[in-house]
Amino acid sequence: MSFQPVPLERTVVDGIIAEHGIAVGNASIREVNRIISAIEESTGLSFIRMELGVPGLEPNPIAIEAEIEALRERGLARVYAPFDGVPVLKEAGRNFVRAFLDLDLPAECCIPTVGAMHGGFISMGIAGRRLPGRDTILFLDPGFPVNKLQCRVWGLENDSIDVHSCRGDDLVAAVEKHFATGRVGGLLYSNPNNPSWVCFKESELEGIGRLCSEYGVLAIEDLAYFGMDFRAEYGVPFEPPYQPTVARYTDQYVLLISSSKIFSYAGQRVALAVVSPALFDEESENLARYFGTSSPGYAFVAGGIYPTTAGVPEGPQYGLAAILRAAVEGDFRFTEPVREYARRAEAMKAAFLENGFSLVYDNDLGEPLADGFYFTVTYPGFDCAGLVEELIYYGISAIGLNTTGSHVGEGIRACVSLTSLEQVPELRHRLEAFHRDHRGQ
Amino acid sequence: MSFQPVPLERTVVDGIIAEHGIAVGNASIREVNRIISAIEESTGLSFIRMELGVPGLEPNPIAIEAEIEALRERGLARVYAPFDGVPVLKEAGRNFVRAFLDLDLPAECCIPTVGAMHGGFISMGIAGRRLPGRDTILFLDPGFPVNKLQCRVWGLENDSIDVHSCRGDDLVAAVEKHFATGRVGGLLYSNPNNPSWVCFKESELEGIGRLCSEYGVLAIEDLAYFGMDFRAEYGVPFEPPYQPTVARYTDQYVLLISSSKIFSYAGQRVALAVVSPALFDEESENLARYFGTSSPGYAFVAGGIYPTTAGVPEGPQYGLAAILRAAVEGDFRFTEPVREYARRAEAMKAAFLENGFSLVYDNDLGEPLADGFYFTVTYPGFDCAGLVEELIYYGISAIGLNTTGSHVGEGIRACVSLTSLEQVPELRHRLEAFHRDHRGQ
Repeated sequence: MSFQPVPLERTVVDGIIAEHGIAVGNASIREVNRIISAIEESTGLSFIRMELGVPGLEPNPIAIEAEIEALRERGLARVYAPFDGVPVLKEAGRNFVRAFLDLDLPAECCIPTVGAMHGGFISMGIAGRRLPGRDTILFLDPGFPVNKLQCRVWGLENDSIDVHSCRGDDLVAAVEKHFATGRVGGLLYSNPNNPSWVCFKESELEGIGRLCSEYGVLAIEDLAYFGMDFRAEYGVPFEPPYQPTVARYTDQYVLLISSSKIFSYAGQRVALAVVSPALFDEESENLARYFGTSSPGYAFVAGGIYPTTAGVPEGPQYGLAAILRAAVEGDFRFTEPVREYARRAEAMKAAFLENGFSLVYDNDLGEPLADGFYFTVTYPGFDCAGLVEELIYYGISAIGLNTTGSHVGEGIRACVSLTSLEQVPELRHRLEAFHRDHRGQ
Repeated sequence: MSFQPVPLERTVVDGIIAEHGIAVGNASIREVNRIISAIEESTGLSFIRMELGVPGLEPNPIAIEAEIEALRERGLARVYAPFDGVPVLKEAGRNFVRAFLDLDLPAECCIPTVGAMHGGFISMGIAGRRLPGRDTILFLDPGFPVNKLQCRVWGLENDSIDVHSCRGDDLVAAVEKHFATGRVGGLLYSNPNNPSWVCFKESELEGIGRLCSEYGVLAIEDLAYFGMDFRAEYGVPFEPPYQPTVARYTDQYVLLISSSKIFSYAGQRVALAVVSPALFDEESENLARYFGTSSPGYAFVAGGIYPTTAGVPEGPQYGLAAILRAAVEGDFRFTEPVREYARRAEAMKAAFLENGFSLVYDNDLGEPLADGFYFTVTYPGFDCAGLVEELIYYGISAIGLNTTGSHVGEGIRACVSLTSLEQVPELRHRLEAFHRDHRGQ
């Protein structure tokens, strides 16, 4: 096997980066992406691209066919869809939540959104305004950088706990310390975690849920990687184990179920927000001021979905409904295709670890981490930005953990989705070159 | 022809309304809609439904087929679409703007949104934060009620000028009076106007544009009814007359081009925001605080589209692109199918005017109003809420002009879209009954 030569000519790479006028080591995902594409084009080297958290598999044809059928048969473009979602998707969502989370909720609680980004945005606006003075969203970091931007767009404050050396009882205690300030309206985290791939245990979720109930804080649980802790099989309908969720321990929650990763359906921007039934019964005058209705549940639709997008495009709703139905009926084991990511993670991690790298987030409350969509690695002697920048000369792109809210001060986030198993020898070859040039420095 | 008998039994109707616990005369569009559906179901009477501003025609099959082709051929659901829109739609938007607005802009300025609601929401957030202290959006009323809700959701203030007795130089002077307070960041209006169907003249748009430039106020021009002032033919590509727009007179604008009404494509939630090129060159530190970037143009995408929905579903973008291309190439005269609304308006207005009603917004700077999607009528002795409520007994539903920001204090908004020409005799029969029961009161 012949490999493309690395490192690249430093002056060439530096010139391209300088043209962009951005410090690439601290740049956002999209900025890194743009610069790397320019370097690829200029040097002819195909990078091992780990900066984007985008799906890398084919979408389920069930969804595509369902969309086409809806377009042909239902005449659906003509009038507005219901703002709270087409009934068939709400019902399919309800059944999915029952089959894979073991939660029994009315269909009303399953609200389609324009991607999980939309549901997260609305949830934060509600969480930060439900009670006067509670205008801080607390993040369990590291996390998805754009969630913090959403917080800023609302004009809300944010605060952060790094889970790196704070798990189990320590994590619950740290959350309570923040809640006790009386300034926290919402708690946002992803589970499995982007980017560290730590997965909260039931005991942690129980503690967090208890505190959310006690302090009246809205848990915004991002389930973008639903079922992708592959140490367990969460994809068998109506059979345990079920995807862990805070919803078992509190009635103060919104769950965000994205279709981008688990169903490889990113481009059609359709997701589900599962809004706790309790939030439909509650009244908050502070919400009414902004959203025109005082119930957080109704505010999600009438004050959230309606004034932002007036609903979700109807075709994609039928696509997602078809996937959910197939999963519930056992016709589509949704955890199966995405196990490919675990195979890639295992092979890619090994290539890093053999070449002087170590995991930053390196254990799951004492257990080994699962292999999944992301992992985090560091190399001695480099901070986050320095490692991002140095790896570029070796044809490897990633983002620095500092941009994800990590407090550790070193390491990168590696996304496995765009690197096939066939490319791993190329990755290994580049890491060997990197290690040869930097070992013992 | 036999007609269903009216008025309905008052106690029956009153009972249903009471069950909803809402003062129907002052209710929102959606609330009126829900109550009327309940009355229809209970009484068996089919209402003449004029409360919803929804399209009533078939969508263009060009768009449906283009979506299907994109789903089949492009594998588009798999990865994220560009946040600023798929290039083919941006380019089609650019050509549409050139062909029908006679404006030459880079494709970058044509930004797809999840319906024009989305573009309006983002525009208001930018307008109200571009300069410190400019947190008021000024509305030229009457208008679409949800625009005011959008303003509240952002935590912005709103102010209003009623165009009823304020047109021409008076309108421009009134706008300047508000701008001179130094508190106005954005000016929002629809043209043709929902619901009065007045259409601003070039001289008014020129005055408004001059003031927007002078005071640095962002004009948010809602072109939901693009080309639907049927007194002129705006649907011939590259030929005057062109749809009037403030963009000819200022570089401080965002134009919202909805596909819901003019292309009967409401359900797929796809629209274009045309953002002035000047807004990409400007810098505002106050924006950076919220949107992470200081340029209003870039903030629209990176701080607006990205954190709210991370882009527009890709399939509908291909649908809209196909319609725009067909219009530009002269294969689809988009103003032709929607002329049906003008025919309905003419017939329906006549039925009202023959039965003691008069137009509220009754002239267009001295000229007769165009016939279009909406009109406004009143009946002696009733305020807005009273007329809405009384008409219900006669099987006619509408919303009160008070809920649209009108300062006049009487009249209703009538939308023609759901009433076919065949139903006009039924409408006339009901109005005759109403008039018989109320004349001379």
